Amino acid sequence: MRRLIHAKDIDHLALGATVLGTGGGGDPYIGALMAKQAIEKYGPVEMVSIDELNDDDLVIPSAMMGAPTVMIEKMPGGDEPVKAFTQLEKFLGRKAAATVSIEAGGLNSTIPFVVAAELGIPIVDADGMGRAFPEIPMTALHFGGISATPMMVADEKGNTVLLSTVNGAWTEALSRNATIVMGGSSMLALYGANADKMAPNLVHGTLSTAMKIGELLEAKEDAAVRLANLLKFTDGVEVFRGKLTDVMRRTVDGFARGTVTLEGMGVDSGSVCRLEFQNENLIAMRDGEPVATVPDLITVLDQETIHPITTEELRYGQRVIVITMPCAPVWHRPECLELVGPRYFGYDFDFKPLRPLTTQNA
Amino acid sequence: MRRLIHAKDIDHLALGATVLGTGGGGDPYIGALMAKQAIEKYGPVEMVSIDELNDDDLVIPSAMMGAPTVMIEKMPGGDEPVKAFTQLEKFLGRKAAATVSIEAGGLNSTIPFVVAAELGIPIVDADGMGRAFPEIPMTALHFGGISATPMMVADEKGNTVLLSTVNGAWTEALSRNATIVMGGSSMLALYGANADKMAPNLVHGTLSTAMKIGELLEAKEDAAVRLANLLKFTDGVEVFRGKLTDVMRRTVDGFARGTVTLEGMGVDSGSVCRLEFQNENLIAMRDGEPVATVPDLITVLDQETIHPITTEELRYGQRVIVITMPCAPVWHRPECLELVGPRYFGYDFDFKPLRPLTTQNA
Repeated sequence: MRRLIHAKDIDHLALGATVLGTGGGGDPYIGALMAKQAIEKYGPVEMVSIDELNDDDLVIPSAMMGAPTVMIEKMPGGDEPVKAFTQLEKFLGRKAAATVSIEAGGLNSTIPFVVAAELGIPIVDADGMGRAFPEIPMTALHFGGISATPMMVADEKGNTVLLSTVNGAWTEALSRNATIVMGGSSMLALYGANADKMAPNLVHGTLSTAMKIGELLEAKEDAAVRLANLLKFTDGVEVFRGKLTDVMRRTVDGFARGTVTLEGMGVDSGSVCRLEFQNENLIAMRDGEPVATVPDLITVLDQETIHPITTEELRYGQRVIVITMPCAPVWHRPECLELVGPRYFGYDFDFKPLRPLTTQNA
Repeated sequence: MRRLIHAKDIDHLALGATVLGTGGGGDPYIGALMAKQAIEKYGPVEMVSIDELNDDDLVIPSAMMGAPTVMIEKMPGGDEPVKAFTQLEKFLGRKAAATVSIEAGGLNSTIPFVVAAELGIPIVDADGMGRAFPEIPMTALHFGGISATPMMVADEKGNTVLLSTVNGAWTEALSRNATIVMGGSSMLALYGANADKMAPNLVHGTLSTAMKIGELLEAKEDAAVRLANLLKFTDGVEVFRGKLTDVMRRTVDGFARGTVTLEGMGVDSGSVCRLEFQNENLIAMRDGEPVATVPDLITVLDQETIHPITTEELRYGQRVIVITMPCAPVWHRPECLELVGPRYFGYDFDFKPLRPLTTQNA
């Protein structure tokens, strides 16, 4: 299942990953631009499934951290993701055989292509979440017992911080804080592990899925057809259709947090929808009742283009469609829901899954 | 000039180093306790002058970071300084031949003895400042072109942060912040360099000087005689004698900051003295005029015992003597004064040296 990814594939990938990124995961334009520049300079990147690697091949995910607000203003010079990556390799005393995305999302699905292109290594068709989440330990890798540390945090000035921690909460606290000190965003290399240990703890096919979504959304068809195709392909449903009448946002503790209000249109006339986000969309409330909840995916689409709108791009007056899509099955596990369910983010209700909870949750 | 330091020497050392520590440099009782425990367990520590090491011997200073307020409550379990030290050795791929104090001060003059005793390596009779300062780059090593990084920051829970930075300001910002996240204090290994590179950039004889001061203060003589001996030995002068009528303190950005007011007694009756500190005493103002200024040493002594009182121990009602002592000549250099003079700390006047500025400053 090897496939060469060219610069022209990256736009589809970034577009589709932004749908999966539930409004977060970084700015898709910056990520796509960096990935395309790297591929044009170093050549196409080979995408492989993890079982095409040797069991003892080292795989190191590559990512950016920080508030999307800041990332837009602090667009990296280009080689910082590679620096964090090679510094971690140096510390481990081993070269990585491949890289992989830690999360879906416009930026963090494409950043690893910068590393893969420059270092001439393949990228695994997978990610660590099947969506985007705001905190470092919120990955299937974490729940599979793979440590995020040793983790390299690098800024665009040349500073690096290598973390080794006793648990995920300390990883999150120390890396988030270093990122804030570094100016609000940073480049990461983390969760390094051998392919055999990593394989059962990834969400597989994420990059292919994202590229397919991108193709569906870019097809020369009516908005309604493209929306229907998207929902069919992702098992998603429409939650609300309306006009954006208010967006409140603030940067708190290094996160972009906010609340969005939508006034219903068409079938949703007379209703109000409220979205809450922390980098990523967390909750959709319809007339005060939660209708879509984290960890299920919640994405805001433009009614005309059916393109996703990131939490950073939400603006008064936009006419949008809110959709929800089922999360990867791993998130149905009770120990996972404890870290990524609504209650963790401060809401007083449980996860209301779109897809029946799997037997793992019985 | 090799000398074996036994547990019984440590109390003199901690006492004298607290005089040199200008009110900061950590809690002398905790430092002395830890050093004595380590020496009792592992045997006496050899103290050497740096020219007794080979040119290419690696020397790594060992220290603690944080607000003294917090250190008192977070007394380390004992092996954390060693952990930061050995983790840095591991990263460098080399064993240190010796350790050294980064600053004089009750805690940071004795912490390296914990490392030296446990690892069976000598300690160099020197330090990086000839006093204590609140920020990481405020060392003669820094001005000698020795980088504080790679720097290991460790907490008592088992988390470590390895910093590599582009300059001293970033080292300070990132390590201070990691220390705050870690709960307010941390253990450090930093400024590692070969003996030949380190030798011209240390203040030599600090540990012997501190032990001698400790002996003078513990001598069976009157307070007046011991004070006179101390001032003679350190080239110091008495600045003010009075009663402590007010102390305001707050922990800001990981530092213990405060202002102390003294009402004059005896020859100083009718006058008021104000001390300002940031971990260490920075400024003594007599009736509104600066009479002792950083980087010269400013130390508060108990009138009865002539023992130093750290900024953390200052209390209403104490009857004290404020003395000032000349700083090491390195601090007279203009580029050094820029980083450690009164203006750096926000005061609107220049350094008023106790000892004429050296020709280096001409």
